[in-house]
Amino acid sequence: MLQKTTKLLVTTALIAGLATVANAAEKVKWTLATTWGSTLNPFIDSPTNMAKLVEEMSDGRFKIRIDAANKHKSPLGILDMVKGGQYDMGHSASYYWKGKDIETLPFTTMPFGLTAPEQYAWFYYGGGMELMQKAYAKHGVLSYPGGNTGNQMGGWFRKEINSLDDLKGLKMRIPGFAGEVMAKLGLTVTNIAPGELYTSLERGTIDALEWVGPGMDISMGFHKIAPYYYTGWHEPATELQFMVNEKSYEKLPKDLQQILLTAMRVSAYDMYIQNYHMSSEAWSTMLTEFPNIKVKTFPKPVMDAMKKANDELLTELKAQSPLLKETLESQEAYQKKSRKWTEMSDYLYLKDNL
Amino acid sequence: MLQKTTKLLVTTALIAGLATVANAAEKVKWTLATTWGSTLNPFIDSPTNMAKLVEEMSDGRFKIRIDAANKHKSPLGILDMVKGGQYDMGHSASYYWKGKDIETLPFTTMPFGLTAPEQYAWFYYGGGMELMQKAYAKHGVLSYPGGNTGNQMGGWFRKEINSLDDLKGLKMRIPGFAGEVMAKLGLTVTNIAPGELYTSLERGTIDALEWVGPGMDISMGFHKIAPYYYTGWHEPATELQFMVNEKSYEKLPKDLQQILLTAMRVSAYDMYIQNYHMSSEAWSTMLTEFPNIKVKTFPKPVMDAMKKANDELLTELKAQSPLLKETLESQEAYQKKSRKWTEMSDYLYLKDNL
Repeated sequence: MLQKTTKLLVTTALIAGLATVANAAEKVKWTLATTWGSTLNPFIDSPTNMAKLVEEMSDGRFKIRIDAANKHKSPLGILDMVKGGQYDMGHSASYYWKGKDIETLPFTTMPFGLTAPEQYAWFYYGGGMELMQKAYAKHGVLSYPGGNTGNQMGGWFRKEINSLDDLKGLKMRIPGFAGEVMAKLGLTVTNIAPGELYTSLERGTIDALEWVGPGMDISMGFHKIAPYYYTGWHEPATELQFMVNEKSYEKLPKDLQQILLTAMRVSAYDMYIQNYHMSSEAWSTMLTEFPNIKVKTFPKPVMDAMKKANDELLTELKAQSPLLKETLESQEAYQKKSRKWTEMSDYLYLKDNL
Repeated sequence: MLQKTTKLLVTTALIAGLATVANAAEKVKWTLATTWGSTLNPFIDSPTNMAKLVEEMSDGRFKIRIDAANKHKSPLGILDMVKGGQYDMGHSASYYWKGKDIETLPFTTMPFGLTAPEQYAWFYYGGGMELMQKAYAKHGVLSYPGGNTGNQMGGWFRKEINSLDDLKGLKMRIPGFAGEVMAKLGLTVTNIAPGELYTSLERGTIDALEWVGPGMDISMGFHKIAPYYYTGWHEPATELQFMVNEKSYEKLPKDLQQILLTAMRVSAYDMYIQNYHMSSEAWSTMLTEFPNIKVKTFPKPVMDAMKKANDELLTELKAQSPLLKETLESQEAYQKKSRKWTEMSDYLYLKDNL
């Protein structure tokens, strides 16, 4: 009797012990909604790599399922889904919901603004992260850099742009603040989800569009319809964005929080480098493989008009909210400071080594 | 009696259960030797942040102690200590042991070579990592990017350099391949560990030196002795380096391996951004706070002579080993390809927005 009781109790105790082990290794399963299609490299690679790192670093305790746009059918509604808790996380671009919350606009990129290293320095060492968290706090959402495209090309046009008159009346897909600049110059401006871009251009819903740069644009086929490819002014360092539902985040144990934060941070940097590589590859063969593409820079009077419109719109923008004003002025001050260093270091070096 | 025995057995069983937990959470303790002093920001921040992330992501299961140069007294001997197993890890710069193993030279930076985003793209997407592992395999050491300084300044000189004759006979601290270029131009070239730089300049052991850039140089005080500050040509993207003893690495469980790899990768990127920030801050106030500093660019005939010497030395270098030849040619091909994109994107943009 002694033996049997003891065995029973020992077994119970062992089960209790194993339960402790199981509890320590409780599995967390999250879902993430992206704006992108399931094959849209490198945008989709950023959340995909992030989830892979999270799973491997947590030894399988933390898994994040990635839902591409065709699954949730709401490519431009990611903020709402993360805010509402339908998804624990999102991957998108902050400037896509400037119509709903203008304070979230400057965290993607601004026309004539910071370059990629300048902007990362502003985010991580110049106060940018704190301002971004302030803007997203009202939504119960945490926001983090999600991958930078680097300097974007100015877009694909059916005809050469020789003057401001050539721009007037064009229907163009161009998101963010650059869209407002173009609207002020007389274009009809719209944003369209990535999956519908080619069809919109083909059917004439739009006359022109900007997407990203050679690495991503060529596979979309825009050059077949609109062969004039303009260099960039409007998105010098487009940062995509991870969003995390605050309540979901707070439920995570501390180690998984750090695993998540680190995986997001490294995946964002990696996407910048991956896209730099893809654009380098594409640019080096583009002009020989697709000789109909005509690379152009907007004429000076057009660029000057864009700068003037941008300056005027910025003044109006700053009047809209104190946090927005603080954010824009923080970026401007940081740009003034860091651009001097960019000039003395990379710019001067490149000038002699092209 | 039944009660007592049972309690004893239950306690034993619980201990066994807890032992299982403890075993699953077995602690790993590593040591890392750096070339740097314990306050040398941001160089020391890269391994320090890496170790902090490793500890937090592993919930304390994996700790890495950082030994600064004053502890191990061998700032330029890090490879040997990691190779010999005195340390599990190191943090240094690959070009410091070009005299021992010339194949490890090109993984830091090369004169007139790749910029930071180009070089990261080469490492991670253009074959650079594979070549670096090949070079270090003979030492039983794994090697990873450890933080980029960005474009470095050309150095501090006591007198203005107006011609090649002004360079001849100068004793200069300048490491890596750039040192060989300078030697070919008639300088006496040496490498000196960071902790001894100021004293060497003050005592006249050297007449000139290059260190990093405004963010790190100003606090060293070089401008008090040698106020001519030249812009860069010789280290366009100096990548520091994490080294890991291969046997130590293989003993780690898979999750801790991934935690280590990810922590190293993100800390390297972060140091690039941190130094960009520090240099931007320093540059913006340097000329008003230290009006005796004279910023200069080497005259064209001097720069042309450097390029010519560099080209000639590269030809000799490639003859030294097939792996070295493969690495240098891989970098050259990647630079040709990526520089075109750098020109069309950041360079053209900056040209209009300085």
